[in-house]
Amino acid sequence: MDNRPAESHLAPVELGKSYRLINHGPTVLVSARHDGVEDVMAASWCCALDYAPPKLTVVLDKATATRALVERSGRFVIQVPTAVQAGMTHAVGNRSLHSEPHKLRECGVELFGIEGHDLPFVAGCSAWLACRLVPEPHNQQAYDLFIGEVVGAWADDRVFRDGHWHFEDADPALRSLHYIAGGHFYAIGEAVVVKGSES
Amino acid sequence: MDNRPAESHLAPVELGKSYRLINHGPTVLVSARHDGVEDVMAASWCCALDYAPPKLTVVLDKATATRALVERSGRFVIQVPTAVQAGMTHAVGNRSLHSEPHKLRECGVELFGIEGHDLPFVAGCSAWLACRLVPEPHNQQAYDLFIGEVVGAWADDRVFRDGHWHFEDADPALRSLHYIAGGHFYAIGEAVVVKGSES
Repeated sequence: MDNRPAESHLAPVELGKSYRLINHGPTVLVSARHDGVEDVMAASWCCALDYAPPKLTVVLDKATATRALVERSGRFVIQVPTAVQAGMTHAVGNRSLHSEPHKLRECGVELFGIEGHDLPFVAGCSAWLACRLVPEPHNQQAYDLFIGEVVGAWADDRVFRDGHWHFEDADPALRSLHYIAGGHFYAIGEAVVVKGSES
Repeated sequence: MDNRPAESHLAPVELGKSYRLINHGPTVLVSARHDGVEDVMAASWCCALDYAPPKLTVVLDKATATRALVERSGRFVIQVPTAVQAGMTHAVGNRSLHSEPHKLRECGVELFGIEGHDLPFVAGCSAWLACRLVPEPHNQQAYDLFIGEVVGAWADDRVFRDGHWHFEDADPALRSLHYIAGGHFYAIGEAVVVKGSES
């Protein structure tokens, strides 16, 4: 694995294919900023919802500080952490900005910006989806369920390019994480291709 | 892999841990029955929504025959197909009962029953979640988004037992599938355990 920062491999992904960044069900990081406050949390419960315009759902518990930032700013980032970020992912999912004001620094989270988007992006991930909140008060209140429209998408071109993941050829450190419980994740595994299907 | 039918390994999963069956984001099969008609479709967009009572979301396109059966019967099964079922999973996701009345037989789908649940369960999967539809007409109409309350859960005890997946020790044929696009899946891979976390 080369030592350039991951952002130097950041390449735009066309919106029509952005669902593929999360279609395989990875655990994600949710980040948001409002009025100078930034937070990042982990979420297992994030899922594609539509192709065009691309939308996704994410469950944000009422106890999280990130949720309040999403509600107030009306925007957030969903990003796909890599296998080497398992410890950080677990940490930001178990510590709260409410009680630990230096949570991000202590968890080793590094943020960066992307021009045209007033959002905090987490460095070292493999994919990033900038989202605009689609307000649905009943879902948010009754189910903690938030809908986002994807307005920008990027990926690390060492592992996602030409509209496809290339986990099988990339450094295993770049594999996505899939959380179960109690600190136990699985990394994504081997390719399984159905013969005769269109590519 | 022994040759007994998978159902002989079927063991109940306590409802409080049933979210773990889909927490890692597998592609699922959705099955339903109404008035003697049964259908099975594949869905990548299925996600846990709550712990207690356990709930999940699944996106069901208006064009699918399965959706109509879910709407009419008010119940459905979410099941987790295995790596050896990739061809069948892709087939039921690309063929419609509307135009192919013998779709299930032609796709090699075998159904079985579980006492106390008037639902069609797909044989050979690794996990099954019996769901009661929680009607939310706006979500269903505007987003094709359906909410189910999990009322029964079972798993193949060769690969899920004691509340945990054991992919790393089980036959690779039992690994879950994670769809991207165009017939390309990934199987779930290796365990990644964060040290110092609770189990």
